[in-house]
Amino acid sequence: MVFDSKIRPITWEDGMSKMLDQTIIPYEYKYVYISKGQEMFDAIRNMIVRGAPAIGIAGAQGVVLYAQEGRGKYNSFEKYKQWLLEKADYMATSRPTAVNLMWACNEQKEIIKNSNSDIDSLIKELTDKAIEIEKDDIERCIKIGEFGSEVVPKGATILTHCNAGALATGGYGTALGVVRSAYAKDNTIQVFADETRPRQQGARLTTFELAMDGIPVTLITDGMCSYFMNKGMIDMVVVGADRIAANGDAANKIGTYTVAIAAKYHNIPFYVAAPLSTIDTSIASGKEIPIEERSHEEVTHINGKRICAEGINIINPGFDVTPHELIAGIITEKGILRPDYNKSIAEAFKG
Amino acid sequence: MVFDSKIRPITWEDGMSKMLDQTIIPYEYKYVYISKGQEMFDAIRNMIVRGAPAIGIAGAQGVVLYAQEGRGKYNSFEKYKQWLLEKADYMATSRPTAVNLMWACNEQKEIIKNSNSDIDSLIKELTDKAIEIEKDDIERCIKIGEFGSEVVPKGATILTHCNAGALATGGYGTALGVVRSAYAKDNTIQVFADETRPRQQGARLTTFELAMDGIPVTLITDGMCSYFMNKGMIDMVVVGADRIAANGDAANKIGTYTVAIAAKYHNIPFYVAAPLSTIDTSIASGKEIPIEERSHEEVTHINGKRICAEGINIINPGFDVTPHELIAGIITEKGILRPDYNKSIAEAFKG
Repeated sequence: MVFDSKIRPITWEDGMSKMLDQTIIPYEYKYVYISKGQEMFDAIRNMIVRGAPAIGIAGAQGVVLYAQEGRGKYNSFEKYKQWLLEKADYMATSRPTAVNLMWACNEQKEIIKNSNSDIDSLIKELTDKAIEIEKDDIERCIKIGEFGSEVVPKGATILTHCNAGALATGGYGTALGVVRSAYAKDNTIQVFADETRPRQQGARLTTFELAMDGIPVTLITDGMCSYFMNKGMIDMVVVGADRIAANGDAANKIGTYTVAIAAKYHNIPFYVAAPLSTIDTSIASGKEIPIEERSHEEVTHINGKRICAEGINIINPGFDVTPHELIAGIITEKGILRPDYNKSIAEAFKG
Repeated sequence: MVFDSKIRPITWEDGMSKMLDQTIIPYEYKYVYISKGQEMFDAIRNMIVRGAPAIGIAGAQGVVLYAQEGRGKYNSFEKYKQWLLEKADYMATSRPTAVNLMWACNEQKEIIKNSNSDIDSLIKELTDKAIEIEKDDIERCIKIGEFGSEVVPKGATILTHCNAGALATGGYGTALGVVRSAYAKDNTIQVFADETRPRQQGARLTTFELAMDGIPVTLITDGMCSYFMNKGMIDMVVVGADRIAANGDAANKIGTYTVAIAAKYHNIPFYVAAPLSTIDTSIASGKEIPIEERSHEEVTHINGKRICAEGINIINPGFDVTPHELIAGIITEKGILRPDYNKSIAEAFKG
């Protein structure tokens, strides 16, 4: 029996996607319904839904929404399929870094390619797949949590960056899945959450979902991590990932790499928690992971107010890559992968 | 001929302190006049004026303000002096970490102790001292800038954290003094400024004063530094300091230590720029530097709006200590001190 979270950031309901608007948490807790493919594309791009596993689910649902829209538009099933395959490719481009999105859209593309029945049957198959990806994700997160909880020391303080929680997944979390499973066994553990500028997912989302579940959480600003590590107040770091290369290099929210370097300097184990669908074995190293450049306003404005001078330059990479040598282990639904990652990742995909 | 800045954050005018309100930059550029000792204490504590050298000047002025207020309150000069010495001690406690404040208040205390004339003469002496500290600070910063500019490579990109600029000093800057002097010789250099949460001095103040002086500046969030270091986009780091121990350990704005670790990991030289008045030879190491704990609202709120969930914990240390082994050199008005700092600092104080 594991500790459960009530948060479901994205589900399928009455032929629509029902999602929590994560841009307004913790100010408001509001669901929105998405009924068109383009709306889903925009929701992913604008981070109404975010988190690598969650946008995988969203991408799969987005293909279903397009499939529904295409009904009656084409006089041949083949033409419809061709159009839908293009829309699935388009959906996969809504954000470039997280591989789960591409993976989920590809799962839908395989169904489309292999379908030789009719539109209604295809839509049902795609819908079932989207629901399956959502359900599977929760189960995978629970397994990740169970494996990860085994390496959490008694009474540990766990530092995390960004939000790899229920809100980022089907509903349990990867990094925060580890926290939830560990807390279910030992309620003396606690979390330190990095604010995670520019989008403040740590401040807005991680504190929100942990407070909701009654797990003690301390919010710190991004620059503070080394201070607390130096004081012996951090026992381990666990973060999520948006894409992991075959050698274990892991892309995650900007700032993660800085935390990993600080953890190494203080000999604190740094773990990445992610389902195998986050691992992209087609790329040899993190150098090949595309890093999304996001809008300058994310850096220059907070809650609509400019926080800096005019006439300055901005660069806003959304992610960074933590090299495998800084990672103590990758916590997956098939167990904790350890270095040499080329070997352990290859084995996990075989088994 | 060095590059000059027009910004004067704190000066003495008509028996009052005239200071730029740094809590509202870059939204507004407004001077306030401080005419009472307690007002000065509050202005320092609330960071209307901030930056180690600037609050040294403010402390010296604050003692003058009390000296003026005490006029006519005591029927003996000795009683007046005793009261004023207590007020000078009180002024020195307005913030605990920066040693320049204690140093400046001690300079005023020496004058008070040694005075055996009358109140008016003493007030004049204290006023002269406050003005001298201000003027000396600009000259010291210009010397720091000159020495520092010698280690800035051609076309360098210099990363800085917080604001150790004109706004933090009498008007030229320590870390940004190095930038100004380097830019005067080579206008192809540029600055990357860390936002510096929680108070955002990098975003609010460093971008403001560099933009005002036409020096190219790129604002990044605190977690991004390692990303740009890894890309080879940062050539050196220069920061200020609030207190430096005899062994070279340097306290500076929270987050500095994280940047220093990242710089070490990427073999990028990390310099501290500070006048000798920032060095506290009475303490052997950074372990003895008191770290100010500041209000939780600085972390939980930005521009008056809460950015995180309710019911969570906050810790808000205002400073951290960068150990001497991460520091390539301490740039002072007497030249660049190099390891072994115990030796080079002792020599600088002798010479």
